[in-house]
Amino acid sequence: MVQANDPSLKTWVEIPANSDFPIQNLPFGIFESPNHSPRVGVAIGEKIVDLLALNRAGLLSEFDIDDSILENRYLNDLISLGKAKTSKLRNRLADLLREDNDELRDNVARAKVMVKQSAATMLLPINIGDYTDFYSSMDHATNVGKMFRDPENALLPNWKHLPVGYHGRASSIVVSGTPIHRPVGQTKPNDDEPPVYGPCRLLDFELEMAFVTGKGTALGSQVSTAEAEEFIFGLALFNDLSARDIQKWEYVPLGPFLAKNFGSAMSPWIVTLEALDPFRVDGYDQDPEVLPYLKYEGKKNYDINLEVAIKPESGEEKVVCNSNFKYMYWNMCQQLAHQTVTGCNINVGDLYASGTISGPEENEFGSMLEISWRGTKPVPMPDGTERKFIQDKDSVILRGYGERDGVRIGFGECITPILPAKI
Amino acid sequence: MVQANDPSLKTWVEIPANSDFPIQNLPFGIFESPNHSPRVGVAIGEKIVDLLALNRAGLLSEFDIDDSILENRYLNDLISLGKAKTSKLRNRLADLLREDNDELRDNVARAKVMVKQSAATMLLPINIGDYTDFYSSMDHATNVGKMFRDPENALLPNWKHLPVGYHGRASSIVVSGTPIHRPVGQTKPNDDEPPVYGPCRLLDFELEMAFVTGKGTALGSQVSTAEAEEFIFGLALFNDLSARDIQKWEYVPLGPFLAKNFGSAMSPWIVTLEALDPFRVDGYDQDPEVLPYLKYEGKKNYDINLEVAIKPESGEEKVVCNSNFKYMYWNMCQQLAHQTVTGCNINVGDLYASGTISGPEENEFGSMLEISWRGTKPVPMPDGTERKFIQDKDSVILRGYGERDGVRIGFGECITPILPAKI
Repeated sequence: MVQANDPSLKTWVEIPANSDFPIQNLPFGIFESPNHSPRVGVAIGEKIVDLLALNRAGLLSEFDIDDSILENRYLNDLISLGKAKTSKLRNRLADLLREDNDELRDNVARAKVMVKQSAATMLLPINIGDYTDFYSSMDHATNVGKMFRDPENALLPNWKHLPVGYHGRASSIVVSGTPIHRPVGQTKPNDDEPPVYGPCRLLDFELEMAFVTGKGTALGSQVSTAEAEEFIFGLALFNDLSARDIQKWEYVPLGPFLAKNFGSAMSPWIVTLEALDPFRVDGYDQDPEVLPYLKYEGKKNYDINLEVAIKPESGEEKVVCNSNFKYMYWNMCQQLAHQTVTGCNINVGDLYASGTISGPEENEFGSMLEISWRGTKPVPMPDGTERKFIQDKDSVILRGYGERDGVRIGFGECITPILPAKI
Repeated sequence: MVQANDPSLKTWVEIPANSDFPIQNLPFGIFESPNHSPRVGVAIGEKIVDLLALNRAGLLSEFDIDDSILENRYLNDLISLGKAKTSKLRNRLADLLREDNDELRDNVARAKVMVKQSAATMLLPINIGDYTDFYSSMDHATNVGKMFRDPENALLPNWKHLPVGYHGRASSIVVSGTPIHRPVGQTKPNDDEPPVYGPCRLLDFELEMAFVTGKGTALGSQVSTAEAEEFIFGLALFNDLSARDIQKWEYVPLGPFLAKNFGSAMSPWIVTLEALDPFRVDGYDQDPEVLPYLKYEGKKNYDINLEVAIKPESGEEKVVCNSNFKYMYWNMCQQLAHQTVTGCNINVGDLYASGTISGPEENEFGSMLEISWRGTKPVPMPDGTERKFIQDKDSVILRGYGERDGVRIGFGECITPILPAKI
């Protein structure tokens, strides 16, 4: 059996240099075009493999997948087949796409199966049930604590004992490319004056990654750190847009609410956990020692380079952050074990975001709040303007990839154009 | 056209004294039985009107409703028909059930259409998209502030300016009757010692009501207080179970997370907003004046009597709280206007809970935290035991009804049996 992760695999599909989508990646997404109803696709190079067309051509017959699972507005039904099956499916795709296999390469169906990415529109890939946002980067939590609380005791007492998180709004998660209006709401710019209504003045991005669950549990069940990877189907880039001024006024005592509910964005391709296997690295030494239910074995962090660029409407982009997914104090297995320790059930298609991923260096900070240090250090832009926070008509662009043995596994982009407030 | 709310309406169905379900109520739910696949039903007296059977008997032909909308695991598809249609449907049901109408009364289909509640199992009625929990009772927020913060400044500065709320976990919302295991998790019983793992020691209920949205919006749209009622399909009782000790340790700075995600319960019948029309009352005078987007006109509070009983496994129940839905400082229209002020989109089947509904008097407090004043005032039970919080094998029972012009519109019960922790 061909293993998609094999770094020596070559494909008959043309792969541009520095492509995020070599034959070793094969991420899943949902696309449509004037000629295609919404359906499951897999990215390779600058193409999409149309899985519905592939199934209809008889090239996935061993999997016995009903067409309705592939001609589908979401990946949930495909993911629900289980990791054993979707993992084999990914290997089968690698087999079909390898250089010396003529099954698809020389098949009349090829023209129908291989769709240009430039001719397709990517849709939100997951029908998201519940969405949780964690707060798992120590550098981010420390930076926020220094700015808003006590620089000497920046981390709150619970932070190193449990992965702090909160439930977020799922309805307003959109796919890359979807414009978001600057939110309006209630803020309190002056301590001595009443709150005011108006557009958010401190609009920010948060550089995050998010994982999608591929398996559910019953209410009352726990998922251990050892079992957690069975439940993680794959990952995407995630931009947790944040209205800092709304958050500051609203968030006590029950946490962020409207500051986050106006829109969050995810990249369209779900990169499987298997595809990220080569990038596993050790996590932080956790001191103080964590409780047994949060202990884990093995390499559960991932060395994935992340960057954020801001691009004015008709100007050149500026990369404002270079971070890495390895800077997670709490890994995904710990997050899922914590989320379910009470017996909380999970469903296929839940989304769990990491929280802002900041590294220790200033150029690794994952939000404008930190980069501009609360607006005190404006960022110069190529067009001569400067940024403390995001301005109208800016686009925020997240990118991410791992690289090893000459193979680059990437996530594509997560782009969010910001439109002016509607009032 | 018959109006279901008409207090003079009589029905040919036997209605026991003090029934929650007279002909003027007609709430919607989902039931199943050994003879019935999951389907839409409407409660009257001790019976359920099987809407699928009614449709098949041709008695709803004017509505042209596809059977698949009624033979359904959830109400969402029915609700999605729109309030104009579901409201007419409710009036048509009142017409069919009125004393002097023989269409159903003398129809051979009657035996099939009228199902005994005692022979049916009620299911979770809504496929809940997002779930928000507010914190809108001033007496509750004041009590909590007195206990945990400053008795002289119990309410936080933002509380009277906006309806504080947070996003909650939708996956673990269950229907009345579903047992919930006492959650386990991380707590910090002693300030000077590390946190510990184990069963929650301070398990509590929160007496709430929740409304279901019946209409969606696009991302970027606001719903004004004047429009909000168009978006509210109906209400249910809601028990926001809370693990007070888990919450105390985890909740800074991002709010309640695991303290609430192990299970929340709702009553099975969704009472339409129309059915509650007779119980409208004025709300609180809001001082300080609220911002224009939170202003409203008319009577937006509801005089609905609420009670909570605790029943040990084999003992007599004790009513520990008598409160009222009228004790909401922030009404549902304000809550929805606030939730959407940023442009956050809503979907059919979102759930919005009120937050604990406490009144000003001690017997009106809506949680054990308040009733036992943090454990300092234990409640004597009929069996000689006492309660500071909920014990294993207790059942928590919420009840609620409005009464006017001799008509009682009720919600039935929301019962949650508590099982011991699984560890």
